Amino acid sequence: MITDPADTIVAPATAAGGAVCLIRISGPHAIEYSDSIFRGRGPLADAHAPALRYGTIVDADGHTVDDVVISLFRGPHSYTGDDTVEISCHGSQYIVSRIIALLTAAGARMAAAGEFTARAYLAGRMDLSQAEAVADMIAADSQAAHALASTQMRGGYSTALHSLRDKLLRLCSLLELELDFSEEDVAFADRTELRRTMESIGAEIDRLAGSFALGNAIKEGVAVAIVGAPNVGKSTLLNRILGENRAMVSEIAGTTRDTVEERRNIDGVTFRFIDTAGLHDTDDRLERMGIERTEEAISRAHIVVQLAESADGFFDMELAEGQRLVRVLNKTDHHAAATLPDGIIAISALRGDGVERLLEELRAAVDTRALYAGDAVVSSARHRAALEAAGESLRRAMAAMDEGLPTDLLSEDIRQVIHHLGEITGEICTEEILQSIFSRFCIGK
Amino acid sequence: MITDPADTIVAPATAAGGAVCLIRISGPHAIEYSDSIFRGRGPLADAHAPALRYGTIVDADGHTVDDVVISLFRGPHSYTGDDTVEISCHGSQYIVSRIIALLTAAGARMAAAGEFTARAYLAGRMDLSQAEAVADMIAADSQAAHALASTQMRGGYSTALHSLRDKLLRLCSLLELELDFSEEDVAFADRTELRRTMESIGAEIDRLAGSFALGNAIKEGVAVAIVGAPNVGKSTLLNRILGENRAMVSEIAGTTRDTVEERRNIDGVTFRFIDTAGLHDTDDRLERMGIERTEEAISRAHIVVQLAESADGFFDMELAEGQRLVRVLNKTDHHAAATLPDGIIAISALRGDGVERLLEELRAAVDTRALYAGDAVVSSARHRAALEAAGESLRRAMAAMDEGLPTDLLSEDIRQVIHHLGEITGEICTEEILQSIFSRFCIGK
Repeated sequence: MITDPADTIVAPATAAGGAVCLIRISGPHAIEYSDSIFRGRGPLADAHAPALRYGTIVDADGHTVDDVVISLFRGPHSYTGDDTVEISCHGSQYIVSRIIALLTAAGARMAAAGEFTARAYLAGRMDLSQAEAVADMIAADSQAAHALASTQMRGGYSTALHSLRDKLLRLCSLLELELDFSEEDVAFADRTELRRTMESIGAEIDRLAGSFALGNAIKEGVAVAIVGAPNVGKSTLLNRILGENRAMVSEIAGTTRDTVEERRNIDGVTFRFIDTAGLHDTDDRLERMGIERTEEAISRAHIVVQLAESADGFFDMELAEGQRLVRVLNKTDHHAAATLPDGIIAISALRGDGVERLLEELRAAVDTRALYAGDAVVSSARHRAALEAAGESLRRAMAAMDEGLPTDLLSEDIRQVIHHLGEITGEICTEEILQSIFSRFCIGK
Repeated sequence: MITDPADTIVAPATAAGGAVCLIRISGPHAIEYSDSIFRGRGPLADAHAPALRYGTIVDADGHTVDDVVISLFRGPHSYTGDDTVEISCHGSQYIVSRIIALLTAAGARMAAAGEFTARAYLAGRMDLSQAEAVADMIAADSQAAHALASTQMRGGYSTALHSLRDKLLRLCSLLELELDFSEEDVAFADRTELRRTMESIGAEIDRLAGSFALGNAIKEGVAVAIVGAPNVGKSTLLNRILGENRAMVSEIAGTTRDTVEERRNIDGVTFRFIDTAGLHDTDDRLERMGIERTEEAISRAHIVVQLAESADGFFDMELAEGQRLVRVLNKTDHHAAATLPDGIIAISALRGDGVERLLEELRAAVDTRALYAGDAVVSSARHRAALEAAGESLRRAMAAMDEGLPTDLLSEDIRQVIHHLGEITGEICTEEILQSIFSRFCIGK
C-alpha cells in the first residue's frame, strides 16, 4: 500500500539552509501529536481551523526547543484532505530534526517522498498527471518549465486527454451497438466518418508523444556538452557563459578532469552547460577517467558544442538522432578568423566576442512556441510511453478496419487506446506505478 | 540608516530546493501590496489577524502564478513589530522570483540580510546579543551549537551582563556620591569591599572572554586538518570518518589537490574534517597550489591530525597557541604496529580499526560541560573584543584605586566598563556596528 491512511506522517517541507523551516504533519492524529509538544495560548484541538498560533515546542523534559508559528488545517480543507499542521521554526537543521524526532516519538512516522501528494491524489483532490505536475512545478526553474508544469497542474493536459477519451468512448459505443445487432449485419457507424475521427485522434496522440523531446528538454534543462581537444578553451567558454570563474582554468592542458555542469537561463529556457575534459589519446589513468566522463556527457547532450582553435581542428562526431551539433571556432583574439565554412560560429571566449551569437543560436534550437500557446506538451517519459502504446493500438484498430476485420476486434483495440490514456490520468493505475511516480517527489510534498 | 521604517521589505525566508517556499513581506504597506497580487475569498485588509488564507497569486495580466497559503500578522503582534505577510508557495525558484518581482513592482523593496531582525531589535523586541543569537540559532547544526545560541537568544547571556552592569552601576553611584562630598574628604565606599566586588566582576568578565575559544569552535565547528606526506591515507581516513566516498582516492600520490572539507557530528558537537594535499617538496605548479591550501588549512585548524605510516614518519610542526596536535599512525593492516611513543593513536583507515578511538580523542579535546550547565558562553568575536576592552578598563580602575588616584578617574574607568558591556547588548551602538552584525544574517530573517 502506497500510504496507509491510518498513519500520521511528518516531514520537513522546506529545504535546509533558510531563515525559516516548515515541518508538515498530516493524518488522523496530526493535531493530537502536535499538541503533545506545543505550548501556546491553548490546545490546537480547540482552535477553529484554518488558524495561526504562536507558541513554543518543548521536549519531554519541558526544555524549550524553539519558538514557532503553527498553521492548522482541518480535513477535508487541506492539501492532503486530512488534518494537517505546519510548524514554522528557525531554519536550523538541528531544530528541524529535534522537532521531527519528538513527533515520531509521539506516534507519527516519517513521510515517504511525495506521500502528502499521493494522499491528495488518493483523496481525489487531483488526477495523476496533475499530481506529477506538482513535482515539476517545484522543480521549475525557468519561465518555460513553469508554463509546462502549470498547464499540466491546472488540468490543461488532463482536459486534452479527457476530450480524446470522450471521442474514443463515443466511437466504442457506436461499434458496440453494432455488436449487439451483429446477427443482423448492420453497420451503424459510417466507416469513412469513423476513419476520419480515428485519424484525427491519432494525429493528436502523435503530436502529444512527439512533444516529449521539447518537454523533456524544457523540464530537465537543455543539455549542452562543450567538447574539443585539450586546451581549446572549453572551461574559458563555460566561465564566459556563466559570467563567473566556475571552472578551473590554466594554460596546462588537461586542467579539467571531472565534468563541470552549470545551469544558465537563456530567454526563459534553462540550459545545462557541461564543460568536459579534452578529448585526446592518453595513457594517463586519471585523464582516461575524465575522457570517459566526457563521452558519457556527449551521449546525454541535446546539443554538442564542438570547440576548436582552427578550422581544420573540427573532427567528425557520431551523434544520436535528435542531437544537434554546433561548431565553434575559438580564440579569434589570437588569430584572424579565416573564411569559415557555413554554420561555424567564431568566438573569443576570453574576450567574449561572438558568445552572444552562440547563445542565440542555442536558444533558437529550442522551439517554445507550442508551450506558450498553451498547448499540452508532454514532459514525462511515462506519459510518452503510454501515448505511444495508445497510438499503436489505434493504428492496429485502423488496420483492422481497413482489412474489414470483425467489429469486436476493432472495438477491443479502441478499448486499449482508452486504457493507455487512462494510465496517464491515473484512472488505470497499479501500486508499482504510483510507487515509482511518488518516489521521485521530494520529501515533504 | 540601517532600515527605513517607511519601507515595506520583501525576501524569501526559506532556502531554495524544498517542497514549499515562504516569502516574507513586512512594513507599513505589507498588506496592501500583498492584496494587489492575491486573489482569495476576500482582501487580506479585511481579515482579522493572525489569519491563514488560501488563494492564488496573479500577475498584471491576470495569469495565475501559483496557488498559495498566506499567513497574516498585524503589528505589533509580529516578529518585526510591523504588519507582516508570509506567502507559502510551491518551492520553485522561478515562482519565488516571480512573486518577489510582482511585490517589488507594487512598491516593496528587497530586504537586506537580517533586516527583519534588525527591525525587531529597533522596535525593542529583543536586545542586540539576542538578535545576534537568532542568526546563530539558524546556523546551529548540533546540540552544542543549539544550546549555545538558545541560551543567548532567550536572554541567558543578557541576564549575566545585566547583573554585571547593575553591580557596576551601584559601584559608580557610591563613588559619585563621594565626589559630591569631595570637599569634605569622606570615603563612603569601603575600599576593601569595593576591591573585592571589582575582582569578582573582573573574574566573571575574564571567564566570559575566555569562553570564546569554546564558543567559537562550537559555533563554527571544530576544524580538524588531516595532514601528512602524500599517500599516507588522508583521504581514506576522511572517507572512513564520514562513512562515504567523499574524497577521490587512488594509489597515485597527489590525487587530492583542493582541500576537501566535510562536517560530522560527534556526540553533539560538529567537527569540520579537512582533507589536504600531501606535504612534500615539488615543482609541479598545480601540486604547489594544493600544498599552499594545506598550509592555510593548518593555520585555521583547532586540531591538526598528523598522519604517517611509520613511527619515524612524524615531522615537527609549528602550531599556534591553542592549537592541538594529534598524531596518528595509519595502515596497521599493512604492518604490525611497533611499540608506539605515548599519545600516538594507531589506526587502519582502510579497515576502520582504531578510528572510533581517534574520534573519542577528538571529542574529548572539546570540553562542553560549561555549555550544558547553562553558563553563558561567548561565541562572537565582537563580544569577546567588548569583554576584553571591559576587562582592561576594570584593571585600570583597580590599578587607579591601588595607587590612590582620585575617585573621579576611578569612576570614569568604571563608566568605561559599563560602556563596553553595553556594546554587547546594544544599549551603546553605532550604525556601523549594526550594519556589520546584520549583514552576516541570511536574507529573509
